[in-house]
Amino acid sequence: MRIPNHIGIIPDGNRRWAKKAGMSKEKGYDYGLKPGLELFKLCREFGIKEITYYGFTTDNTKRPAVQIEAFKKACVDAVKMLSREDAELLVIGNHESPIFPEELKPYTIRRRKFGNGGIKVNFLVNYGWHWDLNNLLKSENNDRVSKKNLMNLLCSCDISRIDLIIRWGGRRRLSGFLPVQSVYSDFYVVDDLWPDFKPNHFYDALKWYSKQDITLGG
Amino acid sequence: MRIPNHIGIIPDGNRRWAKKAGMSKEKGYDYGLKPGLELFKLCREFGIKEITYYGFTTDNTKRPAVQIEAFKKACVDAVKMLSREDAELLVIGNHESPIFPEELKPYTIRRRKFGNGGIKVNFLVNYGWHWDLNNLLKSENNDRVSKKNLMNLLCSCDISRIDLIIRWGGRRRLSGFLPVQSVYSDFYVVDDLWPDFKPNHFYDALKWYSKQDITLGG
Repeated sequence: MRIPNHIGIIPDGNRRWAKKAGMSKEKGYDYGLKPGLELFKLCREFGIKEITYYGFTTDNTKRPAVQIEAFKKACVDAVKMLSREDAELLVIGNHESPIFPEELKPYTIRRRKFGNGGIKVNFLVNYGWHWDLNNLLKSENNDRVSKKNLMNLLCSCDISRIDLIIRWGGRRRLSGFLPVQSVYSDFYVVDDLWPDFKPNHFYDALKWYSKQDITLGG
Repeated sequence: MRIPNHIGIIPDGNRRWAKKAGMSKEKGYDYGLKPGLELFKLCREFGIKEITYYGFTTDNTKRPAVQIEAFKKACVDAVKMLSREDAELLVIGNHESPIFPEELKPYTIRRRKFGNGGIKVNFLVNYGWHWDLNNLLKSENNDRVSKKNLMNLLCSCDISRIDLIIRWGGRRRLSGFLPVQSVYSDFYVVDDLWPDFKPNHFYDALKWYSKQDITLGG
């Protein structure tokens, strides 16, 4: 089976899951932590080299304060949880904004090895596609057009091209997820909500991906 | 029914269709013309305000010469065909390259009204996501970061945000299609190949779209 090098994860549906379970919406995020760790372990087992989690976005910060606090906390907990694994962990997002969790700043400065290192794990926190691409407008990047190294000039330049994006929660859209790294990505949607994660979702996505004809637009 | 303002069309599968029909691959493109006109008329009828066709890309120009000639010709024919309709037609792509069809240059300079005008039709010809975004690196765009008008600085700045992308031919990926305008797009995939277009594909896509919860990432 052909295995993707880099998988993007859009763990959507936490609020809908909470509502269905009779809880208030913001309670759903905590139930996304266990699936996140389970998926990480499956990726490691299958020899995936890089994995990028969509934590929260600058767009998400327009939500009610109680939800913002809840998804910020879930992201902090998730990063701390992953830092106890063997991984090269990096948090990427606008960390100059006051909404960026203080506890995650040590993870943004450069890629850090945890445990024995190995699989690269990127976690998007207060990420915005606009913020990411705006870096191309900065004056120090002028006249680099000829170098064709556009990807290296993004704020998210440490994140490589994504082969497979898996989105939970049934929605068929990228919602601003890394527009440049996603230009050629195959996009697999799981109808179940993220807190209802099952290993079969991952196996099915890999099986589907291995049958795709990879052309990189050619 | 909630109708999208702007639909992106990825008319994929011409070569696979030709192969299935026992023809050589490049013969398939011609069979994509009639569906293109049919779809245009349906969009107009439903009150869609803007439609963008994915003609060919800079990535596609790595293919065998006989295929390149065939898809170039199909794009020229399609644009000429659409110019006989009531529409505001614009061809967007790298027209400084020798691969850009000479006959289409008059359509690139600015939006032109054909017939009585009306629906905006964008046709991507020799388009590349890299070419599009590279415009952000140009020196005259320096230090505009604060203005937050990123979309206006793209080569494709005349194309607005896309609500719904419909891709024929079963593949679930964007293949470099307008990465910025597509950040929030809902993505509908038709398994049939483009030359097998049926109005029902369009109706089903609209029906599906009208049930989506539009959040623009919020």
